[in-house]
Amino acid sequence: MKITVLTLFPQMYEGFLNASIIKRILDKKLAEIKVVDIRDYSLDKHRHVDDTPYGGGAGMLMKVDVVHRALLNNISNDYTYTVLTSPKARPLKQSDLERLSKLDEMVIICGHYEGIDYRIERYVDEKVSIGDYVLTGGELPSMVLIDGILRLLDEGISADSLKEESFTADLLEYPQYTRPVEYNGDSVPEVLQNGNHELIRKYNLKMALKETLINRPDLLENRQLSEEERKLLAEVVSEM
Amino acid sequence: MKITVLTLFPQMYEGFLNASIIKRILDKKLAEIKVVDIRDYSLDKHRHVDDTPYGGGAGMLMKVDVVHRALLNNISNDYTYTVLTSPKARPLKQSDLERLSKLDEMVIICGHYEGIDYRIERYVDEKVSIGDYVLTGGELPSMVLIDGILRLLDEGISADSLKEESFTADLLEYPQYTRPVEYNGDSVPEVLQNGNHELIRKYNLKMALKETLINRPDLLENRQLSEEERKLLAEVVSEM
Repeated sequence: MKITVLTLFPQMYEGFLNASIIKRILDKKLAEIKVVDIRDYSLDKHRHVDDTPYGGGAGMLMKVDVVHRALLNNISNDYTYTVLTSPKARPLKQSDLERLSKLDEMVIICGHYEGIDYRIERYVDEKVSIGDYVLTGGELPSMVLIDGILRLLDEGISADSLKEESFTADLLEYPQYTRPVEYNGDSVPEVLQNGNHELIRKYNLKMALKETLINRPDLLENRQLSEEERKLLAEVVSEM
Repeated sequence: MKITVLTLFPQMYEGFLNASIIKRILDKKLAEIKVVDIRDYSLDKHRHVDDTPYGGGAGMLMKVDVVHRALLNNISNDYTYTVLTSPKARPLKQSDLERLSKLDEMVIICGHYEGIDYRIERYVDEKVSIGDYVLTGGELPSMVLIDGILRLLDEGISADSLKEESFTADLLEYPQYTRPVEYNGDSVPEVLQNGNHELIRKYNLKMALKETLINRPDLLENRQLSEEERKLLAEVVSEM
Protein backbone atom coordinates (compact mmCIF):
# COMPACT_ATOMS: atom_id res chain seq x y z
CA MET A 1 0.00 0.00 0.00
CA LYS A 2 1.17 3.48 -0.83
CA ILE A 3 0.06 6.38 1.34
CA THR A 4 0.87 9.97 0.43
CA VAL A 5 0.26 12.76 2.92
CA LEU A 6 -0.22 16.34 1.74
CA THR A 7 0.55 18.70 4.61
CA LEU A 8 1.79 22.17 5.49
CA PHE A 9 3.95 20.66 8.26
CA PRO A 10 6.02 17.76 6.87
CA GLN A 11 8.51 18.00 9.74
CA MET A 12 5.77 16.81 12.13
CA TYR A 13 6.04 13.30 10.66
CA GLU A 14 9.71 12.66 11.32
CA GLY A 15 9.43 11.30 14.85
CA PHE A 16 6.32 9.34 13.99
CA LEU A 17 7.73 7.58 10.91
CA ASN A 18 11.00 6.74 12.67
CA ALA A 19 9.45 5.36 15.84
CA SER A 20 10.02 1.71 16.49
CA ILE A 21 6.75 0.00 15.60
CA ILE A 22 5.90 2.07 12.53
CA LYS A 23 9.48 1.92 11.32
CA ARG A 24 9.53 -1.86 11.70
CA ILE A 25 6.43 -2.14 9.53
CA LEU A 26 7.85 0.24 6.92
CA ASP A 27 11.14 -1.67 6.91
CA LYS A 28 9.17 -4.81 6.01
CA LYS A 29 8.00 -2.97 2.85
CA LEU A 30 4.37 -3.58 3.76
CA ALA A 31 3.66 0.03 2.99
CA GLU A 32 5.31 3.12 1.64
CA ILE A 33 4.63 6.53 3.13
CA LYS A 34 5.43 9.74 1.30
CA VAL A 35 5.06 13.12 2.99
CA VAL A 36 4.60 16.06 0.61
CA ASP A 37 4.75 19.76 1.48
CA ILE A 38 1.70 21.49 0.03
CA ARG A 39 3.71 24.71 -0.02
CA ASP A 40 5.82 23.27 -2.85
CA TYR A 41 2.77 23.64 -5.07
CA SER A 42 2.22 27.34 -4.50
CA LEU A 43 2.99 29.35 -7.63
CA ASP A 44 3.36 32.49 -5.53
CA LYS A 45 6.94 33.68 -5.10
CA HIS A 46 6.32 34.02 -1.34
CA ARG A 47 4.94 30.45 -1.34
CA HIS A 48 1.60 31.56 0.07
CA VAL A 49 -0.92 28.79 0.48
CA ASP A 50 -3.78 30.61 2.17
CA ASP A 51 -5.91 33.72 1.80
CA THR A 52 -8.75 35.55 3.60
CA PRO A 53 -12.29 34.17 3.38
CA TYR A 54 -15.03 35.68 1.20
CA GLY A 55 -17.84 37.15 3.27
CA GLY A 56 -15.51 37.88 6.20
CA GLY A 57 -14.73 35.75 9.21
CA ALA A 58 -11.69 34.90 11.28
CA GLY A 59 -8.55 33.22 10.03
CA MET A 60 -7.09 32.25 6.69
CA LEU A 61 -8.20 29.47 4.36
CA MET A 62 -6.04 27.08 2.40
CA LYS A 63 -6.44 27.79 -1.29
CA VAL A 64 -8.24 25.24 -3.47
CA ASP A 65 -5.93 25.71 -6.46
CA VAL A 66 -2.75 25.05 -4.48
CA VAL A 67 -4.13 21.99 -2.69
CA HIS A 68 -5.66 20.60 -5.88
CA ARG A 69 -2.34 21.06 -7.71
CA ALA A 70 -0.56 19.17 -4.92
CA LEU A 71 -3.17 16.41 -5.22
CA LEU A 72 -2.94 16.13 -9.03
CA ASN A 73 0.83 15.85 -8.81
CA ASN A 74 0.72 13.07 -6.24
CA ILE A 75 -1.86 10.60 -7.49
CA SER A 76 -0.96 7.76 -9.81
CA ASN A 77 -4.31 7.65 -11.57
CA ASP A 78 -8.00 8.55 -11.31
CA TYR A 79 -8.64 5.61 -8.99
CA THR A 80 -6.31 6.79 -6.24
CA TYR A 81 -8.47 7.10 -3.14
CA THR A 82 -8.42 10.59 -1.66
CA VAL A 83 -9.17 11.39 1.94
CA LEU A 84 -9.51 14.80 3.61
CA THR A 85 -9.09 15.05 7.37
CA SER A 86 -12.00 17.16 8.54
CA PRO A 87 -14.18 17.58 11.63
CA LYS A 88 -17.13 17.40 9.22
CA ALA A 89 -17.59 13.64 9.23
CA ARG A 90 -18.83 10.96 11.58
CA PRO A 91 -16.09 9.71 13.89
CA LEU A 92 -13.71 7.05 12.57
CA LYS A 93 -14.36 3.43 13.55
CA GLN A 94 -12.24 0.29 13.42
CA SER A 95 -14.28 -0.96 10.46
CA ASP A 96 -13.21 2.17 8.51
CA LEU A 97 -9.56 1.33 9.15
CA GLU A 98 -10.17 -2.23 7.96
CA ARG A 99 -11.81 -0.97 4.79
CA LEU A 100 -9.10 1.61 4.06
CA SER A 101 -6.31 -0.89 4.77
CA LYS A 102 -7.40 -2.83 1.64
CA LEU A 103 -6.66 0.07 -0.72
CA ASP A 104 -3.63 0.01 -3.00
CA GLU A 105 -3.07 3.73 -2.87
CA MET A 106 -4.41 6.55 -0.74
CA VAL A 107 -3.71 10.27 -0.56
CA ILE A 108 -4.50 12.08 2.70
CA ILE A 109 -5.00 15.84 2.55
CA CYS A 110 -4.42 17.37 5.98
CA GLY A 111 -6.93 20.10 6.74
CA HIS A 112 -5.91 23.19 8.62
CA TYR A 113 -7.56 24.51 11.78
CA GLU A 114 -8.48 27.81 10.21
CA GLY A 115 -10.14 26.09 7.30
CA ILE A 116 -9.77 25.08 3.69
CA ASP A 117 -11.65 26.31 0.64
CA TYR A 118 -14.85 24.24 0.44
CA ARG A 119 -14.36 23.55 -3.25
CA ILE A 120 -11.61 21.03 -2.46
CA GLU A 121 -14.32 18.59 -1.31
CA ARG A 122 -15.22 17.97 -4.95
CA TYR A 123 -11.86 16.23 -5.42
CA VAL A 124 -12.08 14.09 -2.31
CA ASP A 125 -13.56 10.59 -1.95
CA GLU A 126 -14.07 10.71 1.80
CA LYS A 127 -13.79 13.04 4.76
CA VAL A 128 -12.33 11.45 7.88
CA SER A 129 -12.71 12.71 11.43
CA ILE A 130 -10.95 10.90 14.27
CA GLY A 131 -13.41 12.16 16.88
CA ASP A 132 -15.71 14.93 18.06
CA TYR A 133 -13.04 17.34 19.24
CA VAL A 134 -11.12 20.22 17.73
CA LEU A 135 -7.41 20.03 16.88
CA THR A 136 -5.01 22.55 15.37
CA GLY A 137 -4.75 20.67 12.09
CA GLY A 138 -5.13 17.41 10.22
CA GLU A 139 -1.59 16.16 10.83
CA LEU A 140 -2.29 14.13 13.99
CA PRO A 141 -5.49 12.69 12.48
CA SER A 142 -3.51 11.60 9.41
CA MET A 143 -0.98 9.86 11.68
CA VAL A 144 -3.81 8.13 13.55
CA LEU A 145 -5.14 6.87 10.22
CA ILE A 146 -1.71 5.68 9.08
CA ASP A 147 -0.92 4.02 12.41
CA GLY A 148 -4.26 2.20 12.54
CA ILE A 149 -3.91 1.03 8.93
CA LEU A 150 -0.26 -0.05 9.12
CA ARG A 151 -1.02 -2.09 12.22
CA LEU A 152 -3.58 -4.06 10.21
CA LEU A 153 -1.09 -4.66 7.38
CA ASP A 154 1.43 -6.19 9.76
CA GLU A 155 0.69 -9.88 10.09
CA GLY A 156 2.71 -10.20 13.27
CA ILE A 157 0.61 -7.64 15.09
CA SER A 158 -2.74 -8.55 13.64
CA ALA A 159 -2.39 -12.29 14.16
CA ASP A 160 -1.85 -11.73 17.89
CA SER A 161 -4.63 -9.23 18.17
CA LEU A 162 -7.10 -11.15 16.08
CA LYS A 163 -6.65 -14.13 18.36
CA GLU A 164 -7.56 -11.99 21.35
CA GLU A 165 -10.31 -10.15 19.50
CA SER A 166 -12.08 -13.30 18.36
CA PHE A 167 -12.20 -14.44 21.96
CA THR A 168 -13.91 -11.34 23.28
CA ALA A 169 -15.41 -9.70 20.21
CA ASP A 170 -16.99 -6.30 20.93
CA LEU A 171 -15.98 -6.45 24.59
CA LEU A 172 -13.19 -4.49 26.23
CA GLU A 173 -10.04 -6.42 26.97
CA TYR A 174 -9.94 -8.33 30.26
CA PRO A 175 -7.35 -7.22 32.84
CA GLN A 176 -3.86 -8.61 32.28
CA TYR A 177 -1.02 -8.99 34.75
CA THR A 178 2.67 -9.67 34.62
CA ARG A 179 5.41 -10.00 37.26
CA PRO A 180 5.75 -9.18 40.13
CA VAL A 181 2.97 -11.41 41.47
CA GLU A 182 2.34 -8.93 44.30
CA TYR A 183 2.81 -5.19 43.99
CA ASN A 184 1.96 -2.60 46.61
CA GLY A 185 -0.74 -4.82 48.12
CA ASP A 186 -2.29 -5.85 44.78
CA SER A 187 -1.86 -9.47 43.79
CA VAL A 188 -2.32 -11.25 40.50
CA PRO A 189 -5.62 -13.21 40.76
CA GLU A 190 -5.00 -16.80 41.90
CA VAL A 191 -6.76 -18.34 38.91
CA LEU A 192 -4.28 -16.75 36.48
CA GLN A 193 -1.35 -18.12 38.45
CA ASN A 194 -2.53 -21.68 37.87
CA GLY A 195 -2.45 -23.47 34.57
CA ASN A 196 -6.12 -24.46 34.20
CA HIS A 197 -6.97 -23.21 30.72
CA GLU A 198 -10.72 -23.60 31.03
CA LEU A 199 -10.90 -21.74 34.35
CA ILE A 200 -8.67 -19.00 32.94
CA ARG A 201 -10.82 -18.68 29.83
CA LYS A 202 -13.98 -18.36 31.91
CA TYR A 203 -12.40 -15.90 34.33
CA ASN A 204 -11.08 -13.71 31.53
CA LEU A 205 -14.44 -13.67 29.79
CA LYS A 206 -16.14 -12.67 33.04
CA MET A 207 -13.62 -9.89 33.63
CA ALA A 208 -14.01 -8.67 30.03
CA LEU A 209 -17.75 -8.40 30.66
CA LYS A 210 -17.08 -6.55 33.93
CA GLU A 211 -14.64 -4.09 32.32
CA THR A 212 -17.15 -3.42 29.57
CA LEU A 213 -20.01 -2.93 32.00
CA ILE A 214 -17.99 -0.45 34.05
CA ASN A 215 -16.26 1.49 31.29
CA ARG A 216 -18.44 1.15 28.21
CA PRO A 217 -21.94 -0.10 29.07
CA ASP A 218 -23.06 1.15 25.64
CA LEU A 219 -21.12 -1.71 24.02
CA LEU A 220 -23.21 -4.27 25.89
CA GLU A 221 -26.48 -2.72 24.76
CA ASN A 222 -25.89 -3.53 21.11
CA ARG A 223 -24.51 -6.97 21.71
CA GLN A 224 -26.10 -10.40 21.49
CA LEU A 225 -24.92 -12.24 24.66
CA SER A 226 -24.35 -15.99 24.64
CA GLU A 227 -25.86 -18.15 27.37
CA GLU A 228 -22.48 -18.35 29.13
CA GLU A 229 -21.94 -14.60 28.88
CA ARG A 230 -25.39 -13.89 30.28
CA LYS A 231 -24.65 -16.09 33.30
CA LEU A 232 -21.23 -14.55 33.89
CA LEU A 233 -22.59 -11.03 33.59
CA ALA A 234 -25.26 -11.85 36.19
CA GLU A 235 -22.45 -13.02 38.50
CA VAL A 236 -20.57 -9.76 37.91
CA VAL A 237 -23.63 -7.69 38.77
CA SER A 238 -24.43 -9.72 41.90
CA GLU A 239 -20.87 -9.26 43.14
CA MET A 240 -20.82 -5.47 42.67
CA MET B 1 -0.11 24.27 32.72
CA LYS B 2 2.47 21.54 32.99
CA ILE B 3 2.03 18.32 31.05
CA THR B 4 4.37 15.37 31.50
CA VAL B 5 4.21 12.42 29.12
CA LEU B 6 5.50 9.01 30.18
CA THR B 7 6.29 6.97 27.10
CA LEU B 8 8.47 4.20 25.69
CA PHE B 9 9.01 6.27 22.52
CA PRO B 10 10.10 9.81 23.45
CA GLN B 11 11.59 10.37 19.99
CA MET B 12 8.06 10.29 18.52
CA TYR B 13 7.34 13.71 20.06
CA GLU B 14 10.14 15.67 18.43
CA GLY B 15 8.39 16.62 15.21
CA PHE B 16 5.13 17.28 17.01
CA LEU B 17 6.55 19.61 19.66
CA ASN B 18 8.62 21.53 17.13
CA ALA B 19 5.84 22.03 14.59
CA SER B 20 4.77 25.57 14.03
CA ILE B 21 1.47 25.94 15.87
CA ILE B 22 2.37 23.89 18.93
CA LYS B 23 5.81 25.49 19.10
CA ARG B 24 4.26 28.97 18.94
CA ILE B 25 2.03 28.15 21.91
CA LEU B 26 4.93 26.66 23.88
CA ASP B 27 7.09 29.69 23.10
CA LYS B 28 4.40 31.89 24.68
CA LYS B 29 4.96 29.93 27.92
CA LEU B 30 1.29 29.01 28.10
CA ALA B 31 2.27 25.45 28.83
CA GLU B 32 5.31 23.33 29.48
CA ILE B 33 5.61 19.83 28.05
CA LYS B 34 8.04 17.29 29.39
CA VAL B 35 8.56 13.95 27.70
CA VAL B 36 9.94 11.18 29.93
CA ASP B 37 11.27 7.78 28.85
CA ILE B 38 9.65 5.09 30.99
CA ARG B 39 12.67 2.91 30.27
CA ASP B 40 14.77 5.20 32.49
CA TYR B 41 12.84 3.80 35.47
CA SER B 42 13.63 0.15 34.85
CA LEU B 43 15.96 -1.23 37.52
CA ASP B 44 16.90 -4.09 35.23
CA LYS B 45 20.39 -3.84 33.73
CA HIS B 46 18.91 -4.62 30.30
CA ARG B 47 16.33 -1.85 30.88
CA HIS B 48 13.43 -4.25 30.39
CA VAL B 49 10.02 -2.68 30.88
CA ASP B 50 7.73 -5.56 29.94
CA ASP B 51 7.16 -9.22 30.71
CA THR B 52 4.86 -12.09 29.67
CA PRO B 53 1.26 -12.17 30.94
CA TYR B 54 0.04 -14.48 33.70
CA GLY B 55 -2.45 -17.02 32.43
CA GLY B 56 -0.94 -16.99 28.92
CA GLY B 57 -1.91 -14.88 25.95
CA ALA B 58 -0.14 -13.05 23.16
CA GLY B 59 2.32 -10.22 23.58
CA MET B 60 4.19 -8.58 26.42
CA LEU B 61 2.79 -6.32 29.13
CA MET B 62 4.32 -3.17 30.56
CA LYS B 63 5.27 -3.79 34.17
CA VAL B 64 3.32 -1.99 36.90
CA ASP B 65 6.36 -1.36 39.10
CA VAL B 66 8.36 0.36 36.34
CA VAL B 67 5.47 2.54 35.19
CA HIS B 68 4.49 3.42 38.75
CA ARG B 69 8.08 4.36 39.55
CA ALA B 70 8.14 6.64 36.50
CA LEU B 71 4.88 8.19 37.68
CA LEU B 72 6.03 8.77 41.26
CA ASN B 73 9.18 10.47 40.04
CA ASN B 74 7.30 12.83 37.76
CA ILE B 75 4.41 14.19 39.80
CA SER B 76 4.76 17.29 41.94
CA ASN B 77 2.25 16.20 44.56
CA ASP B 78 -0.71 13.94 45.29
CA TYR B 79 -3.04 16.27 43.42
CA THR B 80 -1.31 15.91 40.08
CA TYR B 81 -3.95 14.63 37.69
CA THR B 82 -2.99 11.33 36.06
CA VAL B 83 -4.34 10.10 32.76
CA LEU B 84 -3.79 6.75 31.07
CA THR B 85 -4.38 6.46 27.33
CA SER B 86 -6.46 3.33 26.89
CA PRO B 87 -9.04 1.91 24.51
CA LYS B 88 -11.04 1.08 27.65
CA ALA B 89 -12.91 4.37 27.99
CA ARG B 90 -15.68 6.22 26.23
CA PRO B 91 -14.40 8.29 23.32
CA LEU B 92 -12.97 11.74 24.09
CA LYS B 93 -15.23 14.75 23.53
CA GLN B 94 -14.51 18.48 23.24
CA SER B 95 -15.98 19.00 26.72
CA ASP B 96 -13.29 16.66 28.12
CA LEU B 97 -10.58 18.80 26.54
CA GLU B 98 -12.15 21.92 28.06
CA ARG B 99 -12.22 20.31 31.48
CA LEU B 100 -8.64 19.01 31.26
CA SER B 101 -7.34 22.37 29.96
CA LYS B 102 -8.18 23.91 33.36
CA LEU B 103 -5.76 21.66 35.25
CA ASP B 104 -2.47 23.01 36.60
CA GLU B 105 -0.59 19.80 36.11
CA MET B 106 -1.27 16.57 34.29
CA VAL B 107 0.73 13.39 33.69
CA ILE B 108 -0.17 11.23 30.70
CA ILE B 109 0.88 7.58 30.76
CA CYS B 110 1.02 6.20 27.23
CA GLY B 111 -0.35 2.69 27.03
CA HIS B 112 1.20 0.12 24.77
CA TYR B 113 -0.62 -1.92 22.13
CA GLU B 114 0.27 -5.22 23.71
CA GLY B 115 -1.05 -4.10 27.06
CA ILE B 116 -0.10 -2.84 30.48
CA ASP B 117 -0.42 -4.53 33.86
CA TYR B 118 -3.97 -3.84 35.07
CA ARG B 119 -2.77 -2.80 38.50
CA ILE B 120 -1.55 0.54 37.11
CA GLU B 121 -5.19 1.68 36.90
CA ARG B 122 -5.21 2.12 40.68
CA TYR B 123 -2.79 5.05 40.30
CA VAL B 124 -4.67 6.74 37.49
CA ASP B 125 -7.43 9.36 37.77
CA GLU B 126 -8.86 8.86 34.32
CA LYS B 127 -8.55 6.64 31.26
CA VAL B 128 -8.74 8.48 27.95
CA SER B 129 -9.58 6.97 24.57
CA ILE B 130 -9.53 9.17 21.47
CA GLY B 131 -11.93 6.91 19.59
CA ASP B 132 -13.22 3.40 18.94
CA TYR B 133 -10.28 2.14 16.92
CA VAL B 134 -7.05 0.31 17.66
CA LEU B 135 -3.62 1.97 17.45
CA THR B 136 -0.10 0.66 18.09
CA GLY B 137 0.29 2.69 21.28
CA GLY B 138 -0.77 5.66 23.35
CA GLU B 139 1.68 8.13 21.86
CA LEU B 140 -0.59 9.54 19.15
CA PRO B 141 -3.54 9.71 21.57
CA SER B 142 -1.36 11.68 24.01
CA MET B 143 -0.45 14.12 21.23
CA VAL B 144 -4.11 14.50 20.33
CA LEU B 145 -4.84 15.35 23.97
CA ILE B 146 -1.97 17.83 24.16
CA ASP B 147 -2.84 19.48 20.85
CA GLY B 148 -6.51 19.87 21.76
CA ILE B 149 -5.66 21.28 25.19
CA LEU B 150 -2.91 23.68 24.06
CA ARG B 151 -5.23 25.07 21.41
CA LEU B 152 -7.70 26.01 24.16
CA LEU B 153 -4.95 27.69 26.20
CA ASP B 154 -3.97 29.92 23.29
CA GLU B 155 -6.14 33.03 23.39
CA GLY B 156 -5.33 33.90 19.80
CA ILE B 157 -6.72 30.65 18.49
CA SER B 158 -9.60 30.28 20.89
CA ALA B 159 -10.87 33.85 20.50
CA ASP B 160 -11.21 33.33 16.73
CA SER B 161 -12.76 29.93 17.10
CA LEU B 162 -15.10 30.85 19.92
CA LYS B 163 -16.50 33.63 17.78
CA GLU B 164 -17.30 31.13 15.05
CA GLU B 165 -18.48 28.49 17.48
CA SER B 166 -20.92 30.76 19.25
CA PHE B 167 -22.48 31.56 15.89
CA THR B 168 -23.16 27.98 14.94
CA ALA B 169 -23.02 26.05 18.20
CA ASP B 170 -23.31 22.30 17.72
CA LEU B 171 -23.52 22.63 13.97
CA LEU B 172 -20.79 21.81 11.50
CA GLU B 173 -18.95 24.75 10.01
CA TYR B 174 -20.51 26.37 6.96
CA PRO B 175 -18.51 26.20 3.70
CA GLN B 176 -15.83 28.86 3.34
CA TYR B 177 -14.16 30.14 0.20
CA THR B 178 -11.13 32.21 -0.67
CA ARG B 179 -9.58 33.41 -3.96
CA PRO B 180 -9.77 32.62 -6.84
CA VAL B 181 -13.45 33.53 -7.21
CA GLU B 182 -13.83 30.83 -9.91
CA TYR B 183 -11.89 27.57 -9.95
CA ASN B 184 -12.38 24.73 -12.37
CA GLY B 185 -16.04 25.66 -12.93
CA ASP B 186 -16.86 26.17 -9.23
CA SER B 187 -17.60 29.75 -8.20
CA VAL B 188 -17.77 31.42 -4.81
CA PRO B 189 -21.50 31.94 -4.04
CA GLU B 190 -22.66 35.43 -5.09
CA VAL B 191 -23.96 36.34 -1.66
CA LEU B 192 -20.49 35.96 -0.10
CA GLN B 193 -18.96 38.22 -2.73
CA ASN B 194 -21.22 41.11 -1.65
CA GLY B 195 -20.92 42.95 1.63
CA ASN B 196 -24.44 42.48 3.04
CA HIS B 197 -23.73 41.19 6.54
CA GLU B 198 -27.28 40.09 7.31
CA LEU B 199 -27.64 38.13 4.07
CA ILE B 200 -24.23 36.54 4.64
CA ARG B 201 -25.14 35.58 8.20
CA LYS B 202 -28.37 33.97 7.06
CA TYR B 203 -26.71 32.16 4.15
CA ASN B 204 -23.93 30.81 6.35
CA LEU B 205 -26.40 29.59 8.96
CA LYS B 206 -28.41 27.83 6.26
CA MET B 207 -25.28 26.22 4.84
CA ALA B 208 -24.15 25.13 8.34
CA LEU B 209 -27.52 23.41 8.75
CA LYS B 210 -27.13 21.80 5.32
CA GLU B 211 -23.59 20.54 6.04
CA THR B 212 -24.77 19.11 9.34
CA LEU B 213 -27.78 17.43 7.78
CA ILE B 214 -25.63 15.80 5.09
CA ASN B 215 -22.58 14.83 7.16
CA ARG B 216 -23.78 14.46 10.75
CA PRO B 217 -27.58 14.22 10.96
CA ASP B 218 -27.12 12.83 14.49
CA LEU B 219 -26.07 16.32 15.66
CA LEU B 220 -29.43 17.77 14.59
CA GLU B 221 -31.39 15.14 16.50
CA ASN B 222 -30.16 16.31 19.89
CA ARG B 223 -30.42 19.99 19.11
CA GLN B 224 -33.08 22.55 19.96
CA LEU B 225 -33.63 24.50 16.71
CA SER B 226 -34.57 28.18 16.78
CA GLU B 227 -37.49 29.45 14.71
CA GLU B 228 -35.09 30.85 12.10
CA GLU B 229 -33.09 27.61 11.97
CA ARG B 230 -36.23 25.55 11.55
CA LYS B 231 -37.28 27.70 8.58
CA LEU B 232 -33.83 27.56 6.97
CA LEU B 233 -33.59 23.78 7.44
CA ALA B 234 -36.98 23.39 5.73
CA GLU B 235 -35.60 25.42 2.81
CA VAL B 236 -32.54 23.17 2.67
CA VAL B 237 -34.68 20.04 2.56
CA SER B 238 -37.02 21.43 -0.09
CA GLU B 239 -34.04 22.29 -2.31
CA MET B 240 -32.42 18.85 -2.08
